[in-house]
Amino acid sequence: MKKLLFLLISVLAIVLAASAGTRDDFKANIKASANNLQAYPDSNLPQLTPAPSGYKPFYIDHYGRHGSRWLIDPKQYAQPVEQLAKADSAGKLTPRGREVLAVLRSVKAASHKRLGELSDVGAEQHQRIARRMYRNFPEVFAGQAVVDARSTVVIRCILSMLNEVDVLKSLNPAIKLTTDASEHDMYYMNYSDRTASQLRRILQRARRDSIVSHYVHPAHMLRVLFNDTAWASRNIDARTLMTNLWDVNGNMQSHHQFEKVDLYDLFSFDDVMSMWNYNNISWYCWSGFTPLTQNYVPYMESNLLRDFLGKADTAIASGRNGAHLRFGHESVLLPLVCLMGLNGMNYSTADLDHLTDRWQTYKVFPMASNVQWVFYRKPGSDDILVKILLNEREARLPAQVATDCAPYYHWRDVRRYMLDVLAAKPHVTLPAAEAK
Amino acid sequence: MKKLLFLLISVLAIVLAASAGTRDDFKANIKASANNLQAYPDSNLPQLTPAPSGYKPFYIDHYGRHGSRWLIDPKQYAQPVEQLAKADSAGKLTPRGREVLAVLRSVKAASHKRLGELSDVGAEQHQRIARRMYRNFPEVFAGQAVVDARSTVVIRCILSMLNEVDVLKSLNPAIKLTTDASEHDMYYMNYSDRTASQLRRILQRARRDSIVSHYVHPAHMLRVLFNDTAWASRNIDARTLMTNLWDVNGNMQSHHQFEKVDLYDLFSFDDVMSMWNYNNISWYCWSGFTPLTQNYVPYMESNLLRDFLGKADTAIASGRNGAHLRFGHESVLLPLVCLMGLNGMNYSTADLDHLTDRWQTYKVFPMASNVQWVFYRKPGSDDILVKILLNEREARLPAQVATDCAPYYHWRDVRRYMLDVLAAKPHVTLPAAEAK
Repeated sequence: MKKLLFLLISVLAIVLAASAGTRDDFKANIKASANNLQAYPDSNLPQLTPAPSGYKPFYIDHYGRHGSRWLIDPKQYAQPVEQLAKADSAGKLTPRGREVLAVLRSVKAASHKRLGELSDVGAEQHQRIARRMYRNFPEVFAGQAVVDARSTVVIRCILSMLNEVDVLKSLNPAIKLTTDASEHDMYYMNYSDRTASQLRRILQRARRDSIVSHYVHPAHMLRVLFNDTAWASRNIDARTLMTNLWDVNGNMQSHHQFEKVDLYDLFSFDDVMSMWNYNNISWYCWSGFTPLTQNYVPYMESNLLRDFLGKADTAIASGRNGAHLRFGHESVLLPLVCLMGLNGMNYSTADLDHLTDRWQTYKVFPMASNVQWVFYRKPGSDDILVKILLNEREARLPAQVATDCAPYYHWRDVRRYMLDVLAAKPHVTLPAAEAK
Repeated sequence: MKKLLFLLISVLAIVLAASAGTRDDFKANIKASANNLQAYPDSNLPQLTPAPSGYKPFYIDHYGRHGSRWLIDPKQYAQPVEQLAKADSAGKLTPRGREVLAVLRSVKAASHKRLGELSDVGAEQHQRIARRMYRNFPEVFAGQAVVDARSTVVIRCILSMLNEVDVLKSLNPAIKLTTDASEHDMYYMNYSDRTASQLRRILQRARRDSIVSHYVHPAHMLRVLFNDTAWASRNIDARTLMTNLWDVNGNMQSHHQFEKVDLYDLFSFDDVMSMWNYNNISWYCWSGFTPLTQNYVPYMESNLLRDFLGKADTAIASGRNGAHLRFGHESVLLPLVCLMGLNGMNYSTADLDHLTDRWQTYKVFPMASNVQWVFYRKPGSDDILVKILLNEREARLPAQVATDCAPYYHWRDVRRYMLDVLAAKPHVTLPAAEAK
């Protein structure tokens, strides 16, 4: 009984700590609440653990998201302007509402023919990542290192690749570099998994409306923007306005010209936590392991994980040094991280309301987020070690991958674990109406 | 009378010489007849003329086509395989026909999910161009040179850009490089001109069939491939097969894996000249100055020429060194070269059958073709000089642009000339049915 109580208290403490952690993180840096729109957080990177004696890095197996970008859907820029302009014509905006309208108009104008495109901030993120990769793992890129870079066929990813490999080539012109962005590689770079799409659609249909009404509360925002909230409640699509303003504001940090603009007064701190929860839960339903989608969705990245394993095997066998760099999307990186089981992101639950204490995306997939498997070898030894970095921070694998040298792991154990994960892909049963 | 006779003989001599030039060029290098599919010919570049005393290059204004690529239309790979397979099933292929079918099948298989994409050969072309640009004009790229590179939103162009700027950054890591590939720049990078489209459509409707029947003669090809030409004439779409085989064969030089494969025995030398004529005339109707399209079409690149002028003015005023590099398409570069009047490409005629003696595209727009305006300055002088390179060969402007230092020109004269050209844009009258 005492043991059980102790266990319960421990679990509670962990849960509270995690929750407090998120609140504290957002108090310290409100921009982290923008989640997948967050600019890559690399101003305060932790020190990396030195490798065990005699081991040197020789190969990096990598998947990275494109850098900061413009929003993709033109409606997200246009709808807030339309709604606030309508209120302005009716004399219903507060002075702050008029200021916000002016800001939104300038952002919308700047987004013209830029939707979805890599931003100036985004390009720089990749330049810095490449510079650190080179500095932290010089042996990987030494001499005639073989660096093969691939991108999805989406331009912001190709330009992200360009910004990384340019820096690598400038640091060592002898690197043997090949680049590509081909339909040929899309089966692993950004696979379209029909089963995952069907499972997501079923879940979204069942839950989306209740999640929105549970987490999106526009009352504070309406008071800040409108001088007549009764008029606003009749004339403004408040929930859509709130989710759009949340994203437009969250994405300001993607552009040097707007990164100092601050619309966070539109949201109380409770709103911030609530909008973040809404976003986190939506991404969980979309990409995480959960019984609600038969614990299947992360398996949509099976081809990609197999590509990591295959290219690592080849690189080890070749005896050469170098890297495979892949450039794609957060919608790939998040399920990949879940599938790899990094930092407990393979957590599975059907309890969405308590998810946030256990499963948090803002540390996983900001703009330019990346997974790096860094391989180490020692002369005279066949025991290859691997360290996994998530956004350049040392990540941990599930406890069943034993190691005597964390954050380093023995490659044979990691390889075995990943193959076991792949082999455990669940068999999915779809309702007859969806299985067509 | 004597004078007139002399003039006639002179003109005739020039015409014959030009015509002989093309024949000789193709005799020496049959692959040049592939025209816009030709791999960039840089194995034998002429020496560049030293600049007048005291002048140093400081800025390059550039438009370049993507490097070698796969064919874009899947039918071009598929139709020849289908036609020859049909003949094979009917026992109608010669032994050579069966060999050709095997080659075509392997090329088609290799093109899977590669259509329109940059090839290995294409990537290398741009690496070499950048290396020579740097070597020939070191002052342009010295120190913190400002290099701004832009691509159209087409992936083969973006990867071409990547392959050039990588090399530049590896040669001088201090270069201040920015890159982009945005819808925002497409109004000058690859403008869709509605008037040009209408004029082309009218001309194509009137002439296309007669041009094909005049220039595409499959008799020799049929004899090589089929053991029963009577059967072939009933069962094979011979003209389409010939144009597709011409392009598939012409494009073999785009790939290291196929560059040694030779299907030129399918075409007699007369066929080669005739297919080249067909191709050249088609491009002329599509992109040249001709009364048949009201001498309008090259003006579709007005925005691009204005961008050249504007960026040159800015670069000169800034006093800095660097380059504007643009990456796009032959369908832009060819009308641009006509508009600029380089090497007599602004020639205008309605006589398509004698065009080839005067207007030849194979020296203009191979894969990776490029126009470079190289600017020179001299300490203590305001007289800026410019040299124009077409595919890294010194080009000449029309005679009305006087110069005392060819192939260098005084920038004020070139600038004046280009502005006059832009001002002379014709007023187009479309038939009522087209002007909707």
